[in-house]
Amino acid sequence: MKSIGVKLIGAGGYGGLGMIELLLRHPVFKLATLVDVDGVGKPISAMWPYLQDYCDAVIVAPDSPEALASDAAVAVCATPDGVGQITGPKETAAGRRLLDYSGDYRFNSLDLYRQYAQRIGRDPAHKAPDLLASSAYGLSELHRKEIAAAPVVGNPGCFAVSCILGLAPAVKDGLVEVEGIVCDCKTGVSGAGKKAAPQFHYPERYDAANAYRLSGHQHVMEIERELSVLAGRDVRVTFTPQVVPMTRGILSTLYGRLPRGVGQADVLAAYRGFYADEPFVKVRDAGQAASTSDVRGSNRVVVTVACDERTGTFRAVSHIDNLVKGQAGSALQNLNIMFGLAETLGLDQPGAHP
Amino acid sequence: MKSIGVKLIGAGGYGGLGMIELLLRHPVFKLATLVDVDGVGKPISAMWPYLQDYCDAVIVAPDSPEALASDAAVAVCATPDGVGQITGPKETAAGRRLLDYSGDYRFNSLDLYRQYAQRIGRDPAHKAPDLLASSAYGLSELHRKEIAAAPVVGNPGCFAVSCILGLAPAVKDGLVEVEGIVCDCKTGVSGAGKKAAPQFHYPERYDAANAYRLSGHQHVMEIERELSVLAGRDVRVTFTPQVVPMTRGILSTLYGRLPRGVGQADVLAAYRGFYADEPFVKVRDAGQAASTSDVRGSNRVVVTVACDERTGTFRAVSHIDNLVKGQAGSALQNLNIMFGLAETLGLDQPGAHP
Amino acid sequence: MKSIGVKLIGAGGYGGLGMIELLLRHPVFKLATLVDVDGVGKPISAMWPYLQDYCDAVIVAPDSPEALASDAAVAVCATPDGVGQITGPKETAAGRRLLDYSGDYRFNSLDLYRQYAQRIGRDPAHKAPDLLASSAYGLSELHRKEIAAAPVVGNPGCFAVSCILGLAPAVKDGLVEVEGIVCDCKTGVSGAGKKAAPQFHYPERYDAANAYRLSGHQHVMEIERELSVLAGRDVRVTFTPQVVPMTRGILSTLYGRLPRGVGQADVLAAYRGFYADEPFVKVRDAGQAASTSDVRGSNRVVVTVACDERTGTFRAVSHIDNLVKGQAGSALQNLNIMFGLAETLGLDQPGAHP
Amino acid sequence: MKSIGVKLIGAGGYGGLGMIELLLRHPVFKLATLVDVDGVGKPISAMWPYLQDYCDAVIVAPDSPEALASDAAVAVCATPDGVGQITGPKETAAGRRLLDYSGDYRFNSLDLYRQYAQRIGRDPAHKAPDLLASSAYGLSELHRKEIAAAPVVGNPGCFAVSCILGLAPAVKDGLVEVEGIVCDCKTGVSGAGKKAAPQFHYPERYDAANAYRLSGHQHVMEIERELSVLAGRDVRVTFTPQVVPMTRGILSTLYGRLPRGVGQADVLAAYRGFYADEPFVKVRDAGQAASTSDVRGSNRVVVTVACDERTGTFRAVSHIDNLVKGQAGSALQNLNIMFGLAETLGLDQPGAHP
Repeated sequence: MKSIGVKLIGAGGYGGLGMIELLLRHPVFKLATLVDVDGVGKPISAMWPYLQDYCDAVIVAPDSPEALASDAAVAVCATPDGVGQITGPKETAAGRRLLDYSGDYRFNSLDLYRQYAQRIGRDPAHKAPDLLASSAYGLSELHRKEIAAAPVVGNPGCFAVSCILGLAPAVKDGLVEVEGIVCDCKTGVSGAGKKAAPQFHYPERYDAANAYRLSGHQHVMEIERELSVLAGRDVRVTFTPQVVPMTRGILSTLYGRLPRGVGQADVLAAYRGFYADEPFVKVRDAGQAASTSDVRGSNRVVVTVACDERTGTFRAVSHIDNLVKGQAGSALQNLNIMFGLAETLGLDQPGAHP
Repeated sequence: MKSIGVKLIGAGGYGGLGMIELLLRHPVFKLATLVDVDGVGKPISAMWPYLQDYCDAVIVAPDSPEALASDAAVAVCATPDGVGQITGPKETAAGRRLLDYSGDYRFNSLDLYRQYAQRIGRDPAHKAPDLLASSAYGLSELHRKEIAAAPVVGNPGCFAVSCILGLAPAVKDGLVEVEGIVCDCKTGVSGAGKKAAPQFHYPERYDAANAYRLSGHQHVMEIERELSVLAGRDVRVTFTPQVVPMTRGILSTLYGRLPRGVGQADVLAAYRGFYADEPFVKVRDAGQAASTSDVRGSNRVVVTVACDERTGTFRAVSHIDNLVKGQAGSALQNLNIMFGLAETLGLDQPGAHP
Repeated sequence: MKSIGVKLIGAGGYGGLGMIELLLRHPVFKLATLVDVDGVGKPISAMWPYLQDYCDAVIVAPDSPEALASDAAVAVCATPDGVGQITGPKETAAGRRLLDYSGDYRFNSLDLYRQYAQRIGRDPAHKAPDLLASSAYGLSELHRKEIAAAPVVGNPGCFAVSCILGLAPAVKDGLVEVEGIVCDCKTGVSGAGKKAAPQFHYPERYDAANAYRLSGHQHVMEIERELSVLAGRDVRVTFTPQVVPMTRGILSTLYGRLPRGVGQADVLAAYRGFYADEPFVKVRDAGQAASTSDVRGSNRVVVTVACDERTGTFRAVSHIDNLVKGQAGSALQNLNIMFGLAETLGLDQPGAHP
Repeated sequence: MKSIGVKLIGAGGYGGLGMIELLLRHPVFKLATLVDVDGVGKPISAMWPYLQDYCDAVIVAPDSPEALASDAAVAVCATPDGVGQITGPKETAAGRRLLDYSGDYRFNSLDLYRQYAQRIGRDPAHKAPDLLASSAYGLSELHRKEIAAAPVVGNPGCFAVSCILGLAPAVKDGLVEVEGIVCDCKTGVSGAGKKAAPQFHYPERYDAANAYRLSGHQHVMEIERELSVLAGRDVRVTFTPQVVPMTRGILSTLYGRLPRGVGQADVLAAYRGFYADEPFVKVRDAGQAASTSDVRGSNRVVVTVACDERTGTFRAVSHIDNLVKGQAGSALQNLNIMFGLAETLGLDQPGAHP
């Protein structure tokens, strides 16, 4: 098959590295251009020596002639909020499709975007409203059809992937009361990216688990939007982001009330049915062991259904690798869909243990 | 002041070490006798070299003459379920008061104990029913008076300490609906004790967070009993124990529904009032940072009140060191109470950082 | 190309998992039969859930009909010392070539084996002396020709790989005095295998670095044998194995005296020349950063040449992933050589970061 | 006993915290004034919440009236190179004795200081030459007498403590050849201080062990100076600093050649003799287990003597807590000596495990 070039913007962050690692194994997509603001003019392997020989492409600056001249068919913005909405129109004007890692294209309505931007303290006016309107939300399992057709895909937030997939079958089938849903989420430190900060300094993170942004995390909005669509009514969730001292992994424990007459067996059956054909979602029963280490390095989601009938509580536990299914893996899954490839291409491997 | 001897049974486990470390600094209590089934006849510092010179007492076997001849005024059973109910009557017959770390004396009714024992798969008939009837539940903040008087104190479970203290003011004052309470608890690995096991093998625990005993953890019963007493009605909670890759610390995130008209300010005020005079409980607002590393090595509980008014959800986050306030520290606090000493004696230090 | 079947004996240990992960990506070798003493009759993914869907082959017992009937062309013994010398003759009699992970085939002389066996407290009489005589030492970079032809290959020890490759150019070219060589080696915990043990219990390994087997480690013999061959005279080394709290990686710091007139530039040039055509060995200068995290998940060795001319000391720092170049990766490299495939086949990828 | 006030400069770094923790338990020394450039005007517990209630003193700026008016009898500069030589003369002029953590007062000769300063890229002219001339090197075990009398004490470097104490008896008694000594040192990350940096970002430090400053570390000079004094001749050592993924601890493995006729028994006997009366140095034989976790939180040095007679190699392994015996603990030991107190006062406790 003819290869398809990828222009990777923000190549030197963890999200960029994740995409590079995946594309090095991919039979169709090839890295065409690496863009970053750091390390311009040097091979990316100068910044990340583990890539030496495997990826020695020279980093080019965002608006450099080399960046503009890329013959890539798709641009991936592995960049923070705000970059993709400026870069996006240029990339699409150059004939490329776009996949963006940030919140820039997760809400295909100006109004929703405004609310989101306000929550995270950014300019509420989107810089590329037309592109936004044409965008699809890149949670592959729920939006394949839109992703396949959209010029722009907004890759989901890592917490959002774990919560939405952990709740979707129950919310869709009315097996959990939509009022009072709680998402208790624990992430490894790599979710904060590569930039050093006091709270992620090794000695400070040692034996240190903590909740943060208790007044509101930006991922809650996409969770609520998706669950509302599934439920056919407005859904609000209580969301608690927490950091634990590990590098990769998200463990999300999801709670709600069981409707009268609904029990563990009903919920488990619904999950098994909903995800029966999903290559990357595995459903487990409460008695089966599961751990974030089961999904480290893989694009898989493991969802354990473990309702507490004694208290009438719905409970599911969702496990992902925040840098794979929570970021670069979902992105590649979306790219596969966008270009009509098998969805698992380049993604069907189990990671490494231990 | 005249010193008071302590006979420490199960000296060589993590719970025993915690007590030894604390008593080495205590001005009144002194280690009189170290009992264990491992390492008999050797100084405890042969098993734990860091104790060399600080505690070189020879370990004696449980029913050895040396153990029986101890001149201690109190016996501390730092032992698993089942030991204290056999040892207890002998110790009290020898004129000692008793503090037990396990579930053996956490329920001062035969009926409650039977339910507990069945849950953990043990013989439902308590071996020392009279002692059980005379026991006090050793959560100092809630039961000082009983602890002071009781011949036998059942030290609380580590998860239970974090959940009960994190919920008590709200439950007592009706600031959380008692139906639908959720305790999402994350513990460091030391909670499982010193015994090596596959799931705690270093390489297996690396980047590995997981929920366990989803069908029911034994600590839930004492949480429900205490909350029921506070609420004046039957309370059931959904409890999710989870292990994260750290050594010490419990982070418990506690959820419930806010009654109509109750908000963050009300809850925060109630917590501040309830714990105003408590030396070991610190209440924080949602905007103040908190982490398990703030309490590492200390007997402190930090409770962050962080209700989500947008969703009508009560939320508090409780932080303890599972081996101190969750075990040996609470035990020493109880011993201080039992012997009429200042409650903070030997416990008023902040731990070490980092 | 026609696929080549692999019979993997000891499939469920870390060494077996490493081979499974590599073969899942290999274009020619295929897993034909999984043998282990644990988990017989169950898919390996029951023991290791991360393999679900990727490798669900059922484990068969060592001498079961299924194990004997394997149509594999090669047997890999990912087993401890003693297994390969019993299994080996059966496998070769069945027409298979053999690669063994242990010390069973690292010394192709009965006398050397006897010394080795005595050192590790095993029966000094080898059970398969003929096979031993025909074996090759599986350090690919030094023994390609013998490996290609040998019926049996003894995969090298993880420490040995890091030390021999870190010293070979200097020893061969007389750029280090062969008397007084020191190998100071630090390994991650996975080097001890999957079996839980007190010293590898997570809380015990936390903030814990230690030296062990100071009276002699079994890997020293193969280091000395190889260096002696390179030097053309008897070489003895002082070897210090140490464990540090990480999961993967070996950092070996190698010291010796610089001969008069030899300096950093000479040594660096010799290393660059010696390894110029080696796909898996990278040589760095003292000023270039290097870390075990640069080789995590890869088959690469990074050797930093950093002589201290001020003190006349030869120094090189060698970095490997103990489970890849130190075990399964070297094994696959050897299999590629044994079957005439490109040496990098299935091994040319950089691992994952972070 | 009348309390003695301590003015702590650089209170908010790891070195300052270590001193605060120790002084909170000390019967004589009391924190009089906390000085720092960060957090001025706020209680130190605002920056470090674990200190709340235990130490809520307000941080004052270096040359503020409050800092100048301190009634402390001694100033402790827990500050980086360069601060102590400016602050020192002011403190001594105000009648205080001075203990400095940095290299500012480790060399009581202008010439040696110049060499040191050049090596670390600082101005080679010392700012307080008179004070420097009156200073003592604060390695208590070797310099008690000078420390007791000196107006200024230069606390030793953490690596230096572990290497000098690990080598002193052998060097003094001629039990190791002084040519060719190698110090292979591994430190936890806290040695780098509290400041976040890319190489200490949690995800980057995970599974990452590395050597650094291979062209020369500043601690080597004080090691060589002390060993030269002990040997009575010029000694040079090869020093390799390495970082491993733990928070506290230094493991230094020390090598040299055994003189003809010297064996393990001789060396062990010499160490036992040399340190027989030292409260903080424990000598172990090669067969006894030792680990950095044995000294975590304690002021102890454990030295394992493990010569390799087979290769004629002297070897000792030294274990310290870099933040206690490697920093604040040694500092307090020195303060005790300076003020005529028992050397172990406030330091005789074993730390916490696990």
